Amino acid sequence: MPNSISKRSQKAGLPPGTLVHVGEPGMEEPRISVMVYDAMRLEEEYVDTVGEAFPLQESPVVTWINVDGIHDVSIVEELGARLGLHPLVLEDILNPDQRPKMEDLGDYLYVVLKMVDWDGQRGEITMEQMSVLVGANYVVSLQERPGGDVLDPIRERIREAKGTIRGEGPDYLAYSIMDGVVDGCFGVLEGLGEKVEDLEVELVSSPLPETLQELHVLKREMIYMRKAVWPLREVVAALERSGSPLIEESTVPYLRDVYDHTIQVMDAVETVRDMLSGMLDIYLSSISNRMNEVMKVLTIFASIFIPLTFIAGVYGMNFQYMPELAWRWSYPVVWLVMLVVGVALLWYFRRKRWL
Amino acid sequence: MPNSISKRSQKAGLPPGTLVHVGEPGMEEPRISVMVYDAMRLEEEYVDTVGEAFPLQESPVVTWINVDGIHDVSIVEELGARLGLHPLVLEDILNPDQRPKMEDLGDYLYVVLKMVDWDGQRGEITMEQMSVLVGANYVVSLQERPGGDVLDPIRERIREAKGTIRGEGPDYLAYSIMDGVVDGCFGVLEGLGEKVEDLEVELVSSPLPETLQELHVLKREMIYMRKAVWPLREVVAALERSGSPLIEESTVPYLRDVYDHTIQVMDAVETVRDMLSGMLDIYLSSISNRMNEVMKVLTIFASIFIPLTFIAGVYGMNFQYMPELAWRWSYPVVWLVMLVVGVALLWYFRRKRWL
Amino acid sequence: MPNSISKRSQKAGLPPGTLVHVGEPGMEEPRISVMVYDAMRLEEEYVDTVGEAFPLQESPVVTWINVDGIHDVSIVEELGARLGLHPLVLEDILNPDQRPKMEDLGDYLYVVLKMVDWDGQRGEITMEQMSVLVGANYVVSLQERPGGDVLDPIRERIREAKGTIRGEGPDYLAYSIMDGVVDGCFGVLEGLGEKVEDLEVELVSSPLPETLQELHVLKREMIYMRKAVWPLREVVAALERSGSPLIEESTVPYLRDVYDHTIQVMDAVETVRDMLSGMLDIYLSSISNRMNEVMKVLTIFASIFIPLTFIAGVYGMNFQYMPELAWRWSYPVVWLVMLVVGVALLWYFRRKRWL
Amino acid sequence: MPNSISKRSQKAGLPPGTLVHVGEPGMEEPRISVMVYDAMRLEEEYVDTVGEAFPLQESPVVTWINVDGIHDVSIVEELGARLGLHPLVLEDILNPDQRPKMEDLGDYLYVVLKMVDWDGQRGEITMEQMSVLVGANYVVSLQERPGGDVLDPIRERIREAKGTIRGEGPDYLAYSIMDGVVDGCFGVLEGLGEKVEDLEVELVSSPLPETLQELHVLKREMIYMRKAVWPLREVVAALERSGSPLIEESTVPYLRDVYDHTIQVMDAVETVRDMLSGMLDIYLSSISNRMNEVMKVLTIFASIFIPLTFIAGVYGMNFQYMPELAWRWSYPVVWLVMLVVGVALLWYFRRKRWL
Amino acid sequence: MPNSISKRSQKAGLPPGTLVHVGEPGMEEPRISVMVYDAMRLEEEYVDTVGEAFPLQESPVVTWINVDGIHDVSIVEELGARLGLHPLVLEDILNPDQRPKMEDLGDYLYVVLKMVDWDGQRGEITMEQMSVLVGANYVVSLQERPGGDVLDPIRERIREAKGTIRGEGPDYLAYSIMDGVVDGCFGVLEGLGEKVEDLEVELVSSPLPETLQELHVLKREMIYMRKAVWPLREVVAALERSGSPLIEESTVPYLRDVYDHTIQVMDAVETVRDMLSGMLDIYLSSISNRMNEVMKVLTIFASIFIPLTFIAGVYGMNFQYMPELAWRWSYPVVWLVMLVVGVALLWYFRRKRWL
Repeated sequence: MPNSISKRSQKAGLPPGTLVHVGEPGMEEPRISVMVYDAMRLEEEYVDTVGEAFPLQESPVVTWINVDGIHDVSIVEELGARLGLHPLVLEDILNPDQRPKMEDLGDYLYVVLKMVDWDGQRGEITMEQMSVLVGANYVVSLQERPGGDVLDPIRERIREAKGTIRGEGPDYLAYSIMDGVVDGCFGVLEGLGEKVEDLEVELVSSPLPETLQELHVLKREMIYMRKAVWPLREVVAALERSGSPLIEESTVPYLRDVYDHTIQVMDAVETVRDMLSGMLDIYLSSISNRMNEVMKVLTIFASIFIPLTFIAGVYGMNFQYMPELAWRWSYPVVWLVMLVVGVALLWYFRRKRWL
Repeated sequence: MPNSISKRSQKAGLPPGTLVHVGEPGMEEPRISVMVYDAMRLEEEYVDTVGEAFPLQESPVVTWINVDGIHDVSIVEELGARLGLHPLVLEDILNPDQRPKMEDLGDYLYVVLKMVDWDGQRGEITMEQMSVLVGANYVVSLQERPGGDVLDPIRERIREAKGTIRGEGPDYLAYSIMDGVVDGCFGVLEGLGEKVEDLEVELVSSPLPETLQELHVLKREMIYMRKAVWPLREVVAALERSGSPLIEESTVPYLRDVYDHTIQVMDAVETVRDMLSGMLDIYLSSISNRMNEVMKVLTIFASIFIPLTFIAGVYGMNFQYMPELAWRWSYPVVWLVMLVVGVALLWYFRRKRWL
Repeated sequence: MPNSISKRSQKAGLPPGTLVHVGEPGMEEPRISVMVYDAMRLEEEYVDTVGEAFPLQESPVVTWINVDGIHDVSIVEELGARLGLHPLVLEDILNPDQRPKMEDLGDYLYVVLKMVDWDGQRGEITMEQMSVLVGANYVVSLQERPGGDVLDPIRERIREAKGTIRGEGPDYLAYSIMDGVVDGCFGVLEGLGEKVEDLEVELVSSPLPETLQELHVLKREMIYMRKAVWPLREVVAALERSGSPLIEESTVPYLRDVYDHTIQVMDAVETVRDMLSGMLDIYLSSISNRMNEVMKVLTIFASIFIPLTFIAGVYGMNFQYMPELAWRWSYPVVWLVMLVVGVALLWYFRRKRWL
Repeated sequence: MPNSISKRSQKAGLPPGTLVHVGEPGMEEPRISVMVYDAMRLEEEYVDTVGEAFPLQESPVVTWINVDGIHDVSIVEELGARLGLHPLVLEDILNPDQRPKMEDLGDYLYVVLKMVDWDGQRGEITMEQMSVLVGANYVVSLQERPGGDVLDPIRERIREAKGTIRGEGPDYLAYSIMDGVVDGCFGVLEGLGEKVEDLEVELVSSPLPETLQELHVLKREMIYMRKAVWPLREVVAALERSGSPLIEESTVPYLRDVYDHTIQVMDAVETVRDMLSGMLDIYLSSISNRMNEVMKVLTIFASIFIPLTFIAGVYGMNFQYMPELAWRWSYPVVWLVMLVVGVALLWYFRRKRWL
Repeated sequence: MPNSISKRSQKAGLPPGTLVHVGEPGMEEPRISVMVYDAMRLEEEYVDTVGEAFPLQESPVVTWINVDGIHDVSIVEELGARLGLHPLVLEDILNPDQRPKMEDLGDYLYVVLKMVDWDGQRGEITMEQMSVLVGANYVVSLQERPGGDVLDPIRERIREAKGTIRGEGPDYLAYSIMDGVVDGCFGVLEGLGEKVEDLEVELVSSPLPETLQELHVLKREMIYMRKAVWPLREVVAALERSGSPLIEESTVPYLRDVYDHTIQVMDAVETVRDMLSGMLDIYLSSISNRMNEVMKVLTIFASIFIPLTFIAGVYGMNFQYMPELAWRWSYPVVWLVMLVVGVALLWYFRRKRWL
């Protein structure tokens, strides 16, 4: 977070609407793909400049422009010019620290989403911003990096005309993207859930300070996860209630379905958070228990041998008049006494359930 | 939870409305029972395919179709076709991870409930999803597994025409099912309550790390319980307020009654949660007390014998000029001194209330 | 709570409106008293069956029927028949685990209250449910057990025509009952407050594990208290806002007064809860302090005598060539060294403020 | 609190509107002062009975009657009779345990305020109830005890015609009183703030159990403070929004100003509470640190001398065949070994940063 | 905080609208700058008295008067007289302890903002109040101290006609100031974030009591930060929804943009707070771990050498009849026994994972 905020603070003082990419510099060339489809036909191509995707087809054909890599400001600028986007929308597209939100700008809707993904190798959540613009006959989706695991199944469905997607408008396509983003959360939660379970086993068997550290990291991941998912609910609800003519009546039940999924994700996030809190308690009491055990061992050793050592010490004194020293059976008797004392103490500790 | 989420995530990318059963595979053959009744007559039979239950009788006769086992997707598909259900409703029926909810789809109401049950042997809560479809002259209930302990008393009441159920419409039958589900929660809370009390006794008498573990498990069970019950309130309230023509005026007081029971269940859940939180405090302070006690024993032993051992050590020194060594009464005097020191320390610890 | 819930769960599966008393079995014969009064006249009698109280007088005379002991289901049934009560209301009257609530059933209002009382001897809160039915010219109050300390002052006021009660309608009588119930809470809070203060003194002077146990019990009592008082506010507010023709305009300021008292009770309950939370912190830190003190004593003893014992041990060695052993002043010099070491350590511990 | 509640519970069972003073008995004779003023003239006098202040002057002259000491019930009764006050208002005036509130009774407004004051000597908050009645041409203010530090500056402003007070109506006077009460809170917060800072210094330098006790007392004071201030906000907001003809349009901005001050006070109260919570954490970890330090000293002493004592013990054994005993350099070599062991252990502890 | 509150309490009792500067006395001469601009022209000058800035130009020219240093009451008074400001507004301008707020006074809007800044050297947040008055053709901004890092970029944009600022009205200028203030928060959060990260590294490597102290200070800074930012959201939302004719339709999207930034800042503040809470847990468990480690070292040393010392003590006894003493191999055998005991104990502790 400090990283992105530091980026954000560099922009302070610039006039609003100044287009500067404040995310991490893109590693690769931006990639622009265009899909034009309706129930009957489908055209798909990769283009070099946004301009090639224009002019848009007449309605009811849907044009879907996907841009992977937003570090090339000129692409966003051209998009803005062609579609008549508000300068603040362009600025938000370029700033990958937006909170998920939905804005109804009359001619088009602007939706910001956070795609979360689980990096299994590093055991980390990765997060990427996706901006979606929904117009009367187009959808534009913009991502920070190529990757598109969320969008690929949708492209597949369009290509193979699976489900009803080919017969529906841009609102349905936007819904499909949102549904993909929410579904992606389940994968992340699965990964997190496994990690939490591993941690729990570790915690019960051998709690180390590193376990706590990991717990702490997981907790922080959950904070980020939550910040990505929580506003999503409002976004979907806002779309459902927006009353915008861009959202058709038949799409509303689907949005409600996404809404339900969002609630499920939030529930799961809260459950994981509750589990993590409980684990801290277990960790702390586990530490206490260990200290307790250490204390008991020390106490048993010290309490048994200290009196015996004292007895030995007494008969190590060099007084001339110590009658016991000369007695025939003193030595074995002392051993016996020591044995009795030791056994008595052991019995006492056992009765106290320390052994 | 991670289990069901893992199932859920496998479905990511499929078009909405794709019917895939994402619950655990059913062990047994699905069972379909049909009851057709009004105030005058009653027909009851078990059928093999949903088709046999159709066409539905004319109103005001009520047809109640109950399906135990939703893993056979074809049954749900046929139901959907015959009753004209929305594909998303069918999808939700097959997904046993729904949050309890109520959806008004005009011609029919779709209600998702969670039946909780107490597995006394394993001391665990089991949870099963029940979908209820309420139409103008039918009720369809679908469960994951046979079992039906919730529905049996209702069937009995229909058969024996107890209460007013035979004279009422499908809304009253739906209410009866909901009432049964909420009443089932009381049984679970009874089981939980007993376990909490056992745990409390155990905690006060002999707190072990395992007790904490059990406490933790109980806490988690309460989280699940809560997640099943909390949205139930909204479901019942939504039904009461829906203004749907499918809910008759005379059924509303009954719904309000279920609502009150739901609140009672929630209160009880919160009370158990509060009790569990309090028990963690007791556990921790109990651990602290034990450590304190161990420390005291160690301190008393060490503090008494360390000075005595020192005295013995002094007269174990081998200096040639130690006049005391040659004195006649040195030895008994040293014993006396040791006794006085020991008794004084014991008295001191007693005054400090350590003994 | 598990007790009442266990009772409640036995009723699962019965048709709604089945009249079964789910509270504890009544010890004594139910007692029915009837008061018929208006500004001019007053009749008071004890009857054996509810039937004797009917038919009700013409308005504006108020008939107040009080039933102590609801375990006799037939009384409640007859009341229901005579007054035309809804079966669910009758069921609720017989179930002593209702949450306080107000229901407007058109012809009459149904109010459920919780009377709390302080059992000074056992230092416990007792709780009893009171159902109040308010009609156009009658009030029916039903309690679980005789006792009536709440109702006696009201009877007295009716008998002696104190205040305006004789000139007012059933709504004013219902208000008086509610006011009595809320005033009863102050007595309980007084008892609790004293117990909390006793506990606090005990906690500071000599914290024992039993003190914590008591703290825990008090906390649980507060949870129950809270559950009885919290919904009371809504009940009173609902009555005030109900707009029912059964509540006259002139009674509204009195209801607002009860409302204020309820808020005061809730404030006091919250204050006691806050105090109890604070006391747990004090207890825990008090335990820590004690352990700290024990540790210091151990450390001081051990740290002073262990070096001295070492010195003694050195001169207890049996080497043939130990020149010090033969010196004339060795022994007193060693004593001196020991003294210096001991005093130096004592001075060090004092400087560290451990003494 | 238990004190006032105990008083309150004595009144249980009395008919509403019974005038009994439930506060502490007044020490002094009640004092009644009357100020009659408008922009032109000013009369001020002290009277013995409320009756002397009546009849009220014609509007737009403002009559301000201030009563110090409400334990004389007859004064309140006469006021009620002269001004036509509702019996419940009179009852509330006599009960000094009211929550701050505002009631619009048509002809007049009834406002309850809590004056908090800082008793610098005892380091305690004192709290006093002030009831304010605002009519068309009068303001009546009633306090429990004389003192009037809040009202004196207002009297001064009326006498010297400072600001606009002389030209305004009773609503402005009521505002001025409320403003004075809220301003009084700043003085209390200043006193509290200083105490908190003192405590913090003490906590860091030398945490004692008494410090915790003081912290606890401060926390409780904050609970009371909060209970006095929190409802104040609602009172001011209710006045602002009341739409009562008694509140002139021009006074509304002043009320909004008081509202802002109330929010500021609440903010400060919350900040102090947050600071106090943080201090408990510091205290507890400070205790832990001390125990840690004690443990280290013990461990260092014990761990260094226990091995050395063992070595000395070995050569204190009396075996006949111990060749080392007869060697020439055994004694200095043993000393050397002991020195090496001791230094090695010291080095080890230093490396562990225990020294 | 106690500081400003102490200042605030000195004003208690003064009539409202009395102009007294309650902030810290200004160090420097107040500085007044005036900018008069529209799309075409721009005049900029520094004046000595507010009067020189008047009369205001005709609309649509914007006059921006900026005052650095509000300790000179006469400047504020003259402003009030020239612009016809409400006395309470003037009072609020002079009181630097206002909560951020927006007041619509018809002819003009009064906005209070808190500028936060990060003092990198002292690692502290500094806070300064800015009052902004927005009229039909003017904006007046007043700050406590010169500094103006927030306003300089805006001046620059006006001078160089960057962006659309020159073509817009006073509402856009006010928006720009607010945007600058919110952007300033990002810089502070960056500074704080770095400090939090440093602290975290320190906490894991070497937790000292000082670290906790710093944590505590940071927490308090966050409380202040939060108090400055939290109400900002309401201010911006109030401006957006105000419906005042002073806010033009075209400025609303910009305000919504600032709103989004405010939410982002709040999110970041909450994240930092969550991180700080987690760090306290880490600190405490880190302390526990250290104590545990100390205990283990002590236990291992004591438990190994105490039995060995006992054995040595036994053969240091002076009994005449101790056959072992005369045996040839006793001494090496005892050494062997000691070795075996020591190694056995070491093996035992290793198995317990204490080594």
